[in-house]
Amino acid sequence: LLTEAQRDRLEVVLVSPRNPLNIGAAARAMANFGFPRLTVVAPYAPHWQEAQSAVGAEALLINAQQTESLAEALARCTLVLGTGTLTYRKPEQRVVSLPDLAPLVHAELARGGRAALVFGPEKHGLTREDLSYCHLLVEIPTSAQQPSMNLGQAVAVCLYELGTHGFAADHTQASGSAAAIASASDHEPGAAAQRGAAAERLERLAGVVEQAMVAAEYSPAAMREANRHDLRLLLRRLAPTDRDARRILGLFRRILWRLER
Amino acid sequence: LLTEAQRDRLEVVLVSPRNPLNIGAAARAMANFGFPRLTVVAPYAPHWQEAQSAVGAEALLINAQQTESLAEALARCTLVLGTGTLTYRKPEQRVVSLPDLAPLVHAELARGGRAALVFGPEKHGLTREDLSYCHLLVEIPTSAQQPSMNLGQAVAVCLYELGTHGFAADHTQASGSAAAIASASDHEPGAAAQRGAAAERLERLAGVVEQAMVAAEYSPAAMREANRHDLRLLLRRLAPTDRDARRILGLFRRILWRLER
Repeated sequence: LLTEAQRDRLEVVLVSPRNPLNIGAAARAMANFGFPRLTVVAPYAPHWQEAQSAVGAEALLINAQQTESLAEALARCTLVLGTGTLTYRKPEQRVVSLPDLAPLVHAELARGGRAALVFGPEKHGLTREDLSYCHLLVEIPTSAQQPSMNLGQAVAVCLYELGTHGFAADHTQASGSAAAIASASDHEPGAAAQRGAAAERLERLAGVVEQAMVAAEYSPAAMREANRHDLRLLLRRLAPTDRDARRILGLFRRILWRLER
Repeated sequence: LLTEAQRDRLEVVLVSPRNPLNIGAAARAMANFGFPRLTVVAPYAPHWQEAQSAVGAEALLINAQQTESLAEALARCTLVLGTGTLTYRKPEQRVVSLPDLAPLVHAELARGGRAALVFGPEKHGLTREDLSYCHLLVEIPTSAQQPSMNLGQAVAVCLYELGTHGFAADHTQASGSAAAIASASDHEPGAAAQRGAAAERLERLAGVVEQAMVAAEYSPAAMREANRHDLRLLLRRLAPTDRDARRILGLFRRILWRLER
């Protein structure tokens, strides 16, 4: 099963949760399955304080990290997993069914990477902008009649799956489709070299590429927002290793320097 | 995956639930994973009515069956699964870890049996008496620091597992240890003959055996309660098929008739 150090590198990220009971339930599920790292992005302050000061609140809830933006919450993460209902939205990322997820996450954690499971607000879930930070979307196989899960229950089901399922046997089965993201075997000596680039490096890379696009007058200014979105998605699809991301960053810095002279 | 008819033969049984939000969450998880049969045993009336009349309550909650006793709720069930935290209690039944449970349940449903997942009250869980109606105890693998799950989340995790995991491949793996309870393959022609006896038949059998014990002056009257408990457990361990249970019942009726002459 996952080591303590590996569990410590899987973060649960709640984006603007509203209901204090849901926040408490998410923290409870994390304690149940032994995942200690919780980050909350831009919570509604009164409800967040209520959840933290509730009788019997989990220690991990009281010690949770709080950030203003999702990008900040994900800065150190090398594999970002978005959750939510896909019924009303055509996903722009690869979708993985929850029963197939564990091998991908375990491989990334085994090679020293840091994974994040991102949950959106109760009402409308993650926005298209939020999802553009995700490498993969996780689909919990639910009934077509009632596809949308309660937040606390969705966290419980995901952590149960990741904490309990999908080792050895499943790994080989999933590796075909996992390609770039989870191609390294768990105990390979050069595992660190296969680790994904952290979100902050991908963002830095995206920033430099965008500057290069502007400098090269790649497209009209009106297209800049759409391009930024597409670029973010492209980098998650490519899922470069940290080493490769640094190489590409170096190249674009050089290109940018040239373009701006 | 499970057919609609099979899902319809898996019952979720909540024994004396207290919190209306937990009842609603349990029903939500059932709707999410497509299991429509809910039974509530001896609920606290005001909270039960509050849960049923909540805005957005699931149809299956409004249509739930209500009974006074657990025995009544389980009458037609051929495989009864108890849930709860085992940390403080030495179980008297075989314990199955949730990731290993699905093949046993699927096999019983495939041969036309009816399974029940039984959840106790939030505070103290199922009693020893409640558990004596169970063939197996299900253990959700949780952290030793926080083993006790929230009711709604426990229901979600169990139904996720049963609705999603453990087909074909897992079946062969588990069949060795499943022995009497799940020995038949799913598509065997004589599957119905392998189906377990329903709880009401086991109770009738236990009643006749107990009468025979009394008639035979098997033990002092002071032992009668303890014997009844042990007998109930014994019959679940034996897990006779319905046909065998009828045979044994016939034998004990004959014995009793002889003893009482």
